[in-house]
Amino acid sequence: MVNKTPAAKAPDATRRNERSRRAILDAALEIVGEVGFSKLTIEAIAARAGVGKQTIYRWWPSKAAVLFEACMPEGLDPLTVELPDTGDIEADLKTVLRGTVDELRNPKLEAPTRALSAETQNDPELGRQLTERILEPQLQAYVRRLRSAQEAGQIAADIDVRIAIELLVGPLFHRWHTRTLPLTHEYADTVAELALRGLSPR
Amino acid sequence: MVNKTPAAKAPDATRRNERSRRAILDAALEIVGEVGFSKLTIEAIAARAGVGKQTIYRWWPSKAAVLFEACMPEGLDPLTVELPDTGDIEADLKTVLRGTVDELRNPKLEAPTRALSAETQNDPELGRQLTERILEPQLQAYVRRLRSAQEAGQIAADIDVRIAIELLVGPLFHRWHTRTLPLTHEYADTVAELALRGLSPR
Repeated sequence: MVNKTPAAKAPDATRRNERSRRAILDAALEIVGEVGFSKLTIEAIAARAGVGKQTIYRWWPSKAAVLFEACMPEGLDPLTVELPDTGDIEADLKTVLRGTVDELRNPKLEAPTRALSAETQNDPELGRQLTERILEPQLQAYVRRLRSAQEAGQIAADIDVRIAIELLVGPLFHRWHTRTLPLTHEYADTVAELALRGLSPR
Repeated sequence: MVNKTPAAKAPDATRRNERSRRAILDAALEIVGEVGFSKLTIEAIAARAGVGKQTIYRWWPSKAAVLFEACMPEGLDPLTVELPDTGDIEADLKTVLRGTVDELRNPKLEAPTRALSAETQNDPELGRQLTERILEPQLQAYVRRLRSAQEAGQIAADIDVRIAIELLVGPLFHRWHTRTLPLTHEYADTVAELALRGLSPR
């Protein structure tokens, strides 16, 4: 899904490729916000980005893959991402959950993220791929951070941390998805506090 | 959204209407499972249910409304639903969350429920209506049950129960939506236990 320019190529070609890649991702974000996922086409993305269709097909297997990369924070590799570890699990979780709130509330990303979320329901295979390649590796970063808190005695030893992290991310996702009440930093803080009350040693 | 047959009508007409209503709902469930929401049409529902299109338009404003009613447990009114109250908040929450797992895993309802979930992302107005009319009233039933537990001293008095319930329903919904790990009764129990550890008086 990423730019596969061989390292040996001239710097100019690499820059041109990077410019094309960014133009394609931006075009996908714009178009899906205007017409929705079902009407998004590779042709329309290519036309708006000023590239040939073949350029897009060379780098991405599908329009969902383009959109998915467009929604990822630039430079974030889900396979190597780590949560902050200052030694204070409550402070670190609040930092991370506030960041998630900011991402979910980014107006530029809202329409494409919702379109992609919808498509994971309509297309189970796409959903499973995104979960396996992108979501679960990020959840494993939470698992590592909670394990380190367990070792530091801030989280009870008998807690299944893989389940515990769902008490942190589930509420934010539920509120975003269902639009029940505002998604704010204060909400992120309260979720972190309530969850940690349940996780801390008794 | 419900059958508006006047009570004065002959019992035969009421029975016929109820038969048509059920045939329409079943047809909607079947068709959306076969072709997805975007290709579901009122025409197709009418043809399979053996009724005229006008019968459907008389009772429901849209295909989403038909599907929505079809996905609701028969006889459940979200405005008057109450959670069980045996006096044991942990047992009651496990009963309710296990029931939610059973609903989410019902093979007959999976395709239509996912289609409707997707459509709430693509159509914000539909999403807001379903949240306001159906989801939030059900969440308020959780709020009432947690308040009663608060009065009984089983949940700390300083807890914002409207937020606390999201630690119960959010994880289940997240796991269902993202297909990360199996949605089981054991998972429902663990979520109830972890959340209640956080909510109980210290």
